[in-house]
Amino acid sequence: MIIDVLDTAESFAGVTRRTVKKVPLLRGRTVVNLFFEASTRTRTTFELAAKRLSADVLNIQMAASATTKGETLLDTLANFEAMQCDMFVVRHNRSGTAHFIARHVAPHISVINAGDGSHAHPTQAMLDMFTIRRIKGDFYPLSVAIVGDIAHSRVARSQIHALTTLGVNEVRVIGPKTLMPKDIKALGVHVYHNLEAGLRNVDVVIMLRLQRERMDSELLPGELEYYQQYGLTKEKLEAAKADAMVMHPGPINRGVEIESAVADGPRSVILQQVTHGIAIRMAVMSMTMGSGPNLGTET
Amino acid sequence: MIIDVLDTAESFAGVTRRTVKKVPLLRGRTVVNLFFEASTRTRTTFELAAKRLSADVLNIQMAASATTKGETLLDTLANFEAMQCDMFVVRHNRSGTAHFIARHVAPHISVINAGDGSHAHPTQAMLDMFTIRRIKGDFYPLSVAIVGDIAHSRVARSQIHALTTLGVNEVRVIGPKTLMPKDIKALGVHVYHNLEAGLRNVDVVIMLRLQRERMDSELLPGELEYYQQYGLTKEKLEAAKADAMVMHPGPINRGVEIESAVADGPRSVILQQVTHGIAIRMAVMSMTMGSGPNLGTET
Amino acid sequence: MIIDVLDTAESFAGVTRRTVKKVPLLRGRTVVNLFFEASTRTRTTFELAAKRLSADVLNIQMAASATTKGETLLDTLANFEAMQCDMFVVRHNRSGTAHFIARHVAPHISVINAGDGSHAHPTQAMLDMFTIRRIKGDFYPLSVAIVGDIAHSRVARSQIHALTTLGVNEVRVIGPKTLMPKDIKALGVHVYHNLEAGLRNVDVVIMLRLQRERMDSELLPGELEYYQQYGLTKEKLEAAKADAMVMHPGPINRGVEIESAVADGPRSVILQQVTHGIAIRMAVMSMTMGSGPNLGTET
Repeated sequence: MIIDVLDTAESFAGVTRRTVKKVPLLRGRTVVNLFFEASTRTRTTFELAAKRLSADVLNIQMAASATTKGETLLDTLANFEAMQCDMFVVRHNRSGTAHFIARHVAPHISVINAGDGSHAHPTQAMLDMFTIRRIKGDFYPLSVAIVGDIAHSRVARSQIHALTTLGVNEVRVIGPKTLMPKDIKALGVHVYHNLEAGLRNVDVVIMLRLQRERMDSELLPGELEYYQQYGLTKEKLEAAKADAMVMHPGPINRGVEIESAVADGPRSVILQQVTHGIAIRMAVMSMTMGSGPNLGTET
Repeated sequence: MIIDVLDTAESFAGVTRRTVKKVPLLRGRTVVNLFFEASTRTRTTFELAAKRLSADVLNIQMAASATTKGETLLDTLANFEAMQCDMFVVRHNRSGTAHFIARHVAPHISVINAGDGSHAHPTQAMLDMFTIRRIKGDFYPLSVAIVGDIAHSRVARSQIHALTTLGVNEVRVIGPKTLMPKDIKALGVHVYHNLEAGLRNVDVVIMLRLQRERMDSELLPGELEYYQQYGLTKEKLEAAKADAMVMHPGPINRGVEIESAVADGPRSVILQQVTHGIAIRMAVMSMTMGSGPNLGTET
Repeated sequence: MIIDVLDTAESFAGVTRRTVKKVPLLRGRTVVNLFFEASTRTRTTFELAAKRLSADVLNIQMAASATTKGETLLDTLANFEAMQCDMFVVRHNRSGTAHFIARHVAPHISVINAGDGSHAHPTQAMLDMFTIRRIKGDFYPLSVAIVGDIAHSRVARSQIHALTTLGVNEVRVIGPKTLMPKDIKALGVHVYHNLEAGLRNVDVVIMLRLQRERMDSELLPGELEYYQQYGLTKEKLEAAKADAMVMHPGPINRGVEIESAVADGPRSVILQQVTHGIAIRMAVMSMTMGSGPNLGTET
């Protein structure tokens, strides 16, 4: 299934490089970006993907609390459903919201999880896998390190799931004890609390964004100390393989989790991830709309 | 005229059920959603209707006070007019705004009232009539009860006007004295202050939304007491005819004006109203744009 | 170059008067309205221009401060670039931002300045020139007066530049000493502090908008006194030529910098400026997208 998405995304990667970046696959369909958590960046990538598939897009920004006043979340959804919307792209700060919604809408409606609490962010993980495959070719021989706030990261959770499913050789997670989930080893990963030890001979380094609210919390000694221990610098990157690639879901905190020389350096694929994010979202949207895997042919 | 709109909407009701829900009737036209009062739901239905007619849509959210500072409302309109916009969908908290605007814009510009103060909400009333006709077939034999805050409801005012024009047998309004306009009998309706008495043998029950600001005001004894007296429960609904239909303009306040068992029950047509709202708005938009009554044929 | 834009805009002026106001020149291209300063009006004109060129439009409203937290302005741009966006329309309160951006994005990306600090507002000046040429025919014999807050006006700066380039006979600037830049004479303009003296025999009067923050500052004695000295009334306009035209970039402050009788009077071309603004922006967008000067033919 993940492989199908990656293969489909390959065809869309070509589309986004054309002058006319549109295919008519979702013409006349209505996609609702239902964001209960603000995220201009993620919303924009889904909006662009939908428009390049020729769908009509509604951007609905809602306070997560709005649906507790007077109208329930399910009432809100039932209304959009009654307006004959075809797809919900859902972002919510409560884990499990997208699944909850998918269980309650009519079967012909597609629901895409654009991030739910600290649970999952599947399209982010898929675009990461797409980027790894494009550069490394094969997943089996790879050692991959994920660095940072593992405990609160839905991105990390989805990445571990995808990497394990795709059969990489080894997944390592690196971070301070305070930001590491207690049951993390059950996911089949190796845990490191020292950055250089964890990076030794890896093929892929995935840095996580340190959320500002964590920096100011009791979980961390301070921004500077975090950077000294877990910030990715050119020096520390030398522990990894010579051709190791550096990834980050963005937006990056320069000087907090990553040094500018690395973020902008030759091993960084951070902006390629953004580009691939559009292709992946076009793939997921068109596949969940039931168009099957033969996509991307302009008619 | 209302009948023409309902007939036209029938053709669009088919369009919104298709996979490709677009007709090119307003291609190249510009529709401005000019909302001086926030309403994601109503704005969304007009936006969807316009997009499914292939129009370009501008969403302009303005504070009602904005046009008093520096620029008058008419200056704002004159500017959109100068940008060659073709249609204004206007929502304002001051009664009469849409009419005021319609009197001042150029004759080729269409103005649609999307709710003005406590005066009117015509497309809501039209979609209600559309829903009644689809289920009951004919207006003449019907007894219709409107329940709730009649005094402050533009929806009620428009419904009474439409029902009377269409020649229903009887219109009843039900609500506490504090929420009943003094001159209401002049509209040709029967007034009830007891819910069960008012519902006796009616064919259609239209519940109104109780605005939160009313609940906290001196006009009402309290939310719970309101529900006990005027909330529609399964028990109270038994006073109506066995095949009575239950309507609500949404969003519903569960446990305030309506019991969930009724809102989600077999007699409720609340979500059908939402669906019909798109068809009605497509009809009104295309008819006011001067395309005549032969609409909905895709070319 | 300015003349090329004006000529191209002529072809689009016809497009916006048609029923179907769209040409497919930018179909499949993505235009990002990147506004770090709120301006519904200017953003709307660019949005309409882009949509009438069949482009996909993203409206991104950002606090100017947002890009200092965590992510730099260049990171934000690099991300939109990675999403294969083709054009940035930039509005920022810091002078030079658009140029800064244009120097840093990839060469195939177009950057349009929609107003930067007190520096420039090129499309506004171009639409003013377009309006002057349409009515006066030729620039060479004209005397043009610009009235108001010259010191803080990016519009004035761009107008002076355009008028000088196009070779008008004379540019005059009129305003209180406190709102006049010290080095203004270096731009080749004549300076007046008396409105009637400055208007004597001019062909074109361009009023500037008095920003509310200036009115309350120490630079001005008060709104009323400003109006008495520099507000354009019918009486004062008599100093100008009998066929003098009156312009204003909008939104107008009635009774502050201009009398309603003048703003709505026969010599005012204020709303024509708005109309021409769409054509000019369509011209600039399509020309910077590399379509050359043969534009506006629908295919």
